[in-house]
Amino acid sequence: MYATVMHGPGDVRFERVDDPKIVKPTDAIIKLSATCICGSDLWPYRGLQPSEGPAHMGHEYCGVVIEVGSEVRTVRPGQFVVGSFCLSDNTCPHCKFGFQSSCAQREFMSGAQAPYARVPLADGTLVATAELPSNDLVPHLLATSDVLGTGWYAADAANVREGSTVVVVGDGAVGLMGVLSAKEMGAGRIIAMSRHKSRQDLAKEFGATDIVADRGDAGIERVKELTRGVGAESVLECVGTQEAMTQAINCARPGGTIGYVGVPHGVTLEGQAMFFAQRRMLGGPAPVRRFLPDLMDRVLKGRIKPGKVFDLTLPLAQVAEGYRAMDERRAIKTLLTV
Amino acid sequence: MYATVMHGPGDVRFERVDDPKIVKPTDAIIKLSATCICGSDLWPYRGLQPSEGPAHMGHEYCGVVIEVGSEVRTVRPGQFVVGSFCLSDNTCPHCKFGFQSSCAQREFMSGAQAPYARVPLADGTLVATAELPSNDLVPHLLATSDVLGTGWYAADAANVREGSTVVVVGDGAVGLMGVLSAKEMGAGRIIAMSRHKSRQDLAKEFGATDIVADRGDAGIERVKELTRGVGAESVLECVGTQEAMTQAINCARPGGTIGYVGVPHGVTLEGQAMFFAQRRMLGGPAPVRRFLPDLMDRVLKGRIKPGKVFDLTLPLAQVAEGYRAMDERRAIKTLLTV
Repeated sequence: MYATVMHGPGDVRFERVDDPKIVKPTDAIIKLSATCICGSDLWPYRGLQPSEGPAHMGHEYCGVVIEVGSEVRTVRPGQFVVGSFCLSDNTCPHCKFGFQSSCAQREFMSGAQAPYARVPLADGTLVATAELPSNDLVPHLLATSDVLGTGWYAADAANVREGSTVVVVGDGAVGLMGVLSAKEMGAGRIIAMSRHKSRQDLAKEFGATDIVADRGDAGIERVKELTRGVGAESVLECVGTQEAMTQAINCARPGGTIGYVGVPHGVTLEGQAMFFAQRRMLGGPAPVRRFLPDLMDRVLKGRIKPGKVFDLTLPLAQVAEGYRAMDERRAIKTLLTV
Repeated sequence: MYATVMHGPGDVRFERVDDPKIVKPTDAIIKLSATCICGSDLWPYRGLQPSEGPAHMGHEYCGVVIEVGSEVRTVRPGQFVVGSFCLSDNTCPHCKFGFQSSCAQREFMSGAQAPYARVPLADGTLVATAELPSNDLVPHLLATSDVLGTGWYAADAANVREGSTVVVVGDGAVGLMGVLSAKEMGAGRIIAMSRHKSRQDLAKEFGATDIVADRGDAGIERVKELTRGVGAESVLECVGTQEAMTQAINCARPGGTIGYVGVPHGVTLEGQAMFFAQRRMLGGPAPVRRFLPDLMDRVLKGRIKPGKVFDLTLPLAQVAEGYRAMDERRAIKTLLTV
């Protein structure tokens, strides 16, 4: 088959690779219904993360099972499935505690920007729908695999509750999904920090009540104004830079919580400053598997439309252009049809 | 009066100072029933914290109100009171949110290692008992002012629940109070990390089910063994060094929580390591005022005896020896009679 391989920074190719096959008896092979490019794919694309030679890209996926290994019990060929970017057995103590992204057998998905993909730990990872979904639901179901699941985790980790005041730092796809998630969780006020008109509009559509275009100290000041000098109970940090983390901490109130899902790059926290700031913090790769049945259900019932975050759709063969568009911020997130 | 003044590292003197008086109409003056030395007093005593000239020491206190300012409404002369080391108005949004230690008007108590002391923000800070307590209850009530309140906050911040597995890092007075607090909150297993026989014994008396004498990697390994490789849901970090923080993080399970109350000295947290460790963290100066009525009630009912943490009692005039004994770890915590 032809699939997506990153050879180095800025060098994404759609090229001939081996077809995936069952390697372990716990594997499944799926035919992708659609796939997409993740904001985190831009870290190596931009050379901000060391890469070790050519990499088969893609970790967000949904599709139809075409083959399963001999030990797979819970999914079978013909079923439509969604899985998390974190592969997990869903039976170990960490999984049972709701942190499947720290599964004792954790692997990270790869090779999903392709027509077919191998999914290890299929029983623990994949969630099947009762019937094949209609095509118009596919982008929304695909979004649950990572981008929505990660935004949801940010809101969950940030303790968003009915009536909470929430700040979302980062207007990328994950941040926008964080807005949607906070809305679904009943937040009373959702302040989205964004300087881009199209993203501001989408944030509002997803439930943002206020937009703050300022950054840095001015942004913090504006959030303080909007919260009568107090700060927010919950802040979602969806970027991963020191600037964004500092913004998140300073927008939260004492005793408030920061859920951080942007993979930190060059972020350091000074212990005594953290102590006196008195903010609760929880981050990490999202345990999407915990939320997946619920999120898929919300999509299938038409309650949420997270796939609106895809503002560019390209055929898989044009994946390189999809990366370029996201790198240049011409697109929030690229859907790839297969 | 004669009171305690620290002139520099290792130089604590009991010397003549002005009697405290009402400075603001929201002040109260109390006659101390007893006072004590805090582990945090050892930071400047050991020269590990910059000091700005002579300091009136002491921030843990209980006693009888002898005078109040013109605006004080909730306490009156003759009442026995306990207050937090953090002075707070208990009416601002941060106080109402349960974080009185981040009160908009926050001040830190000082000058309580003395026969008399001024307590600013008396209405918000002081909690009175219905009647004068018997003398044998005074050490236990004194403990609620900071050391127990801080241990309690560590357990609260670490999300200790009925049945939780808890690790306590630090066998100082606060760590021991953390053990007592976890026990009161219904923890199923309490692993105290301690290398000192007398502290191990007290930890057991307060409810520790397991003692780990190892430190560093060996200590982490031992906690992992005791928790079937998983780690603890809740870890109380009661020291404030990088070593203790690292120990705390590594003893927790993914998705577990670290409550840290040792004031961090030279502690740095690396963002990406924190992210992938996936631990929840909350620290800060304890909002003792939130817990004070409940803790005083537990003492008055004879349910808890936190004053057992005082293993040395000296007259206030011998305060310098009290510091020395704690510095040399001959005493866990020194009670000073006035």
